[in-house]
Amino acid sequence: MHNCIFCKILTGEIPTLKVYEDTHAIAFLDVNPVSKGHTLVIPKTHYETLSLMPETEFLSYMATVHKVVKGLMKYTDGVNVLQNNGKDAGQLVPHVHFHIIPRRPGDGLKIGEWHVHHDPDLDKVQMVIKSLLKE
Amino acid sequence: MHNCIFCKILTGEIPTLKVYEDTHAIAFLDVNPVSKGHTLVIPKTHYETLSLMPETEFLSYMATVHKVVKGLMKYTDGVNVLQNNGKDAGQLVPHVHFHIIPRRPGDGLKIGEWHVHHDPDLDKVQMVIKSLLKE
Repeated sequence: MHNCIFCKILTGEIPTLKVYEDTHAIAFLDVNPVSKGHTLVIPKTHYETLSLMPETEFLSYMATVHKVVKGLMKYTDGVNVLQNNGKDAGQLVPHVHFHIIPRRPGDGLKIGEWHVHHDPDLDKVQMVIKSLLKE
Repeated sequence: MHNCIFCKILTGEIPTLKVYEDTHAIAFLDVNPVSKGHTLVIPKTHYETLSLMPETEFLSYMATVHKVVKGLMKYTDGVNVLQNNGKDAGQLVPHVHFHIIPRRPGDGLKIGEWHVHHDPDLDKVQMVIKSLLKE
């Protein structure tokens, strides 16, 4: 897509530190890594969020994500897999990307460390989400 | 697996707020939610990390994860997808699980907000990871 930096990486217009490529996706080092080896995996077709990807394309892409996770788990014992959809979720580049983040003991990263949101109405939330998943 | 709380949820030994189930996976509300609607998706077969899952099982499981992400994106405009592998990555329950986290403007959550780790040797890191992905 015009003006998408990840599409420009795909065409070669923007250089990148590629670590893997197949028919559906490429993996490259994040230029602003949160840890050594922080890798991004992007599908070759432009989709803004996961929910916009057709299932078949999503699964082909996930096969590559799986391969990269397995590779990085030979690099460090801990790996976070993170993908953000939408600005409210902190998505900066509107082209689907999975962050694969190698972790090391005592690295001080706070990914997935959070405060619990106490909710007295969990059963109501359950009903709403259950019905959304039936659509 | 014996003593795995997610396996106990699967057998019904531990009650849960289930929102979806199919042949390969179930989705239920996290009892310690970070946001309203925080949902976990787990495969029915016990695997500790993604790298231990055979590709076919992984992709069947991911089809369910995709369905839940799509459902939750009807609930809020932003959704984080997070999965931790290994203690160093903050994995608390050693049974693969994806966190699907609905996000709202100004909710103050810090998932995926991080400090950049400046690395003068990105090209060396690239070589190492590239070779791990060739194995």
